[in-house]
Amino acid sequence: MAELKLRPLADRVVVEPIEREEMTPSGIILPETAKERPQEGRVIAVGPGRVDESGKRVPMEVKVGDRVLFAKYAGTEFKVDTTKKLLILKESDILAIIEE
Amino acid sequence: MAELKLRPLADRVVVEPIEREEMTPSGIILPETAKERPQEGRVIAVGPGRVDESGKRVPMEVKVGDRVLFAKYAGTEFKVDTTKKLLILKESDILAIIEE
Amino acid sequence: MAELKLRPLADRVVVEPIEREEMTPSGIILPETAKERPQEGRVIAVGPGRVDESGKRVPMEVKVGDRVLFAKYAGTEFKVDTTKKLLILKESDILAIIEE
Amino acid sequence: MAELKLRPLADRVVVEPIEREEMTPSGIILPETAKERPQEGRVIAVGPGRVDESGKRVPMEVKVGDRVLFAKYAGTEFKVDTTKKLLILKESDILAIIEE
Amino acid sequence: MAELKLRPLADRVVVEPIEREEMTPSGIILPETAKERPQEGRVIAVGPGRVDESGKRVPMEVKVGDRVLFAKYAGTEFKVDTTKKLLILKESDILAIIEE
Amino acid sequence: MAELKLRPLADRVVVEPIEREEMTPSGIILPETAKERPQEGRVIAVGPGRVDESGKRVPMEVKVGDRVLFAKYAGTEFKVDTTKKLLILKESDILAIIEE
Amino acid sequence: MAELKLRPLADRVVVEPIEREEMTPSGIILPETAKERPQEGRVIAVGPGRVDESGKRVPMEVKVGDRVLFAKYAGTEFKVDTTKKLLILKESDILAIIEE
Repeated sequence: MAELKLRPLADRVVVEPIEREEMTPSGIILPETAKERPQEGRVIAVGPGRVDESGKRVPMEVKVGDRVLFAKYAGTEFKVDTTKKLLILKESDILAIIEE
Repeated sequence: MAELKLRPLADRVVVEPIEREEMTPSGIILPETAKERPQEGRVIAVGPGRVDESGKRVPMEVKVGDRVLFAKYAGTEFKVDTTKKLLILKESDILAIIEE
Repeated sequence: MAELKLRPLADRVVVEPIEREEMTPSGIILPETAKERPQEGRVIAVGPGRVDESGKRVPMEVKVGDRVLFAKYAGTEFKVDTTKKLLILKESDILAIIEE
Repeated sequence: MAELKLRPLADRVVVEPIEREEMTPSGIILPETAKERPQEGRVIAVGPGRVDESGKRVPMEVKVGDRVLFAKYAGTEFKVDTTKKLLILKESDILAIIEE
Repeated sequence: MAELKLRPLADRVVVEPIEREEMTPSGIILPETAKERPQEGRVIAVGPGRVDESGKRVPMEVKVGDRVLFAKYAGTEFKVDTTKKLLILKESDILAIIEE
Repeated sequence: MAELKLRPLADRVVVEPIEREEMTPSGIILPETAKERPQEGRVIAVGPGRVDESGKRVPMEVKVGDRVLFAKYAGTEFKVDTTKKLLILKESDILAIIEE
Repeated sequence: MAELKLRPLADRVVVEPIEREEMTPSGIILPETAKERPQEGRVIAVGPGRVDESGKRVPMEVKVGDRVLFAKYAGTEFKVDTTKKLLILKESDILAIIEE
């Protein structure tokens, strides 16, 4: 990821998902139910925030490095260097920050 | 839950649902009808509130520890340590606080 | 209802519906037509009002004790002590106050 | 209607519809076409007006006693004393006032 | 139309449609295509304008007597004195004023 | 077009489409794909602009005489003098001005 | 592209897509999954920004020359000089700027 820098627009966030088998350290285990399941990830780039109707930027709540829970089917997926899978999400698709 | 801290974003709330068989002390019994049924829970984490169009945070009405009624099919479910089931809801999915 | 106090959030209202056979004193009789039919009830708890986009609370028009007409299929139903059926509605689902 | 007073909420209006056979005095005759057809009525109660996003009430344009045209399938219907049929509409469902 | 005065609410307009065979003087001929086709009419009554979110009336752009083009399937149709067909439209359904 | 003047309302624009075979001078050729294809035209009348929620007119970006690209299936089509085909669009359906 | 200048309206952007086979230098490889896939492109024209509800222009975040990721199925496609394929997008369809 050294050569490729992404600067997300508005309230978008680039997240590197953490696969389910790697999720045990955090203690979060996703249930096998019909409900929408969140996924865990690491924030690697953050936009400047959306502009509200009065013309001001709304500051972002997440920052680079945050571990986050997000809705599993949110966002747009792409790959870097064949192997690394990333997601671009809106901040509103992020449910919570996992504090460490 | 000691090692895992969740900081919900915006107007989101983490709730630990109270199973129906445990709901008798509160006196609330859910009818077997076709209507949408609320569920009871305990608030364990609260976001900072959504930002309104004039750029100010709307304060949250619920706080950690509140017993709440919420719409049964609202929110995103996940598990902690295989057993503990939690939900992340928007505050607008919470119908009422049960005072004790 | 003595031991169970509900504090509705935002512009929500807790209403105890009045069954149709009890509705004759008010003179309101619901027609057997295909149209949406209102139902009569008594307000037993009222939220603090929703917060508008300028950050101020919009005061509620209904108060505890009001007899109200509301859309029959609105809201979320639950029971207290096996017998008492209550509804949580948004104030916007209440059509009119019946003055006595 | 003497014993039953209805106080509509927000921008709602209680209207007593005028049946089609009684509509000849006004000169309005509804065509038998596929289009949405308005219906004539008399306003018998008026709400205080909706609260706009800046927290102010928007004054109502109709008043008690106005003869009005409204969209035929709008609103919620109910009966008073078995015979009298009334409708609760939003003011936005009223198309025009018929001046006399 | 002498005895019947209609006062449209908000941003509504009463229009008397001009039949297609009478439309040649204006030079507008409607094509037989699948696209939405406008219809020509004469404005005979105009509402006071809608109230915007800051509580002010938005002045109407059309006035009584204007010849207008409007979307053919917009609005609510009714008849006066068996023969005269009128439409109540929102001003936003009017596409243009035909200057004479 | 000398005798017929159209004054579009709000943010509407009257455009005379330029047929595809005439589009070669501009160098724009529309691909035969499944995507939505823009069409080229000449602006012949421009409305005064929409009124925003604070009651002010938003000035129009296009002016009479502009060559424009617009979404092919936008707007309402009509004919003048049997032959001339015109379109009434909202300015938001115009994608770009083609500078000459 | 020398003779054809496009001035996009509002918050629209003209983008020249970069074909997938040319995308290897950036290191971004699109996965063969069911998810929405972003596409890479170069910005060649930028609108002046949308006007917000308080009547002010919201400045654009992208500028001519930026390499961008955008949602693959967004926007309107057209061709210039038979060969060059361009897209007109809203800035909100652009996910991120790729820094070089």
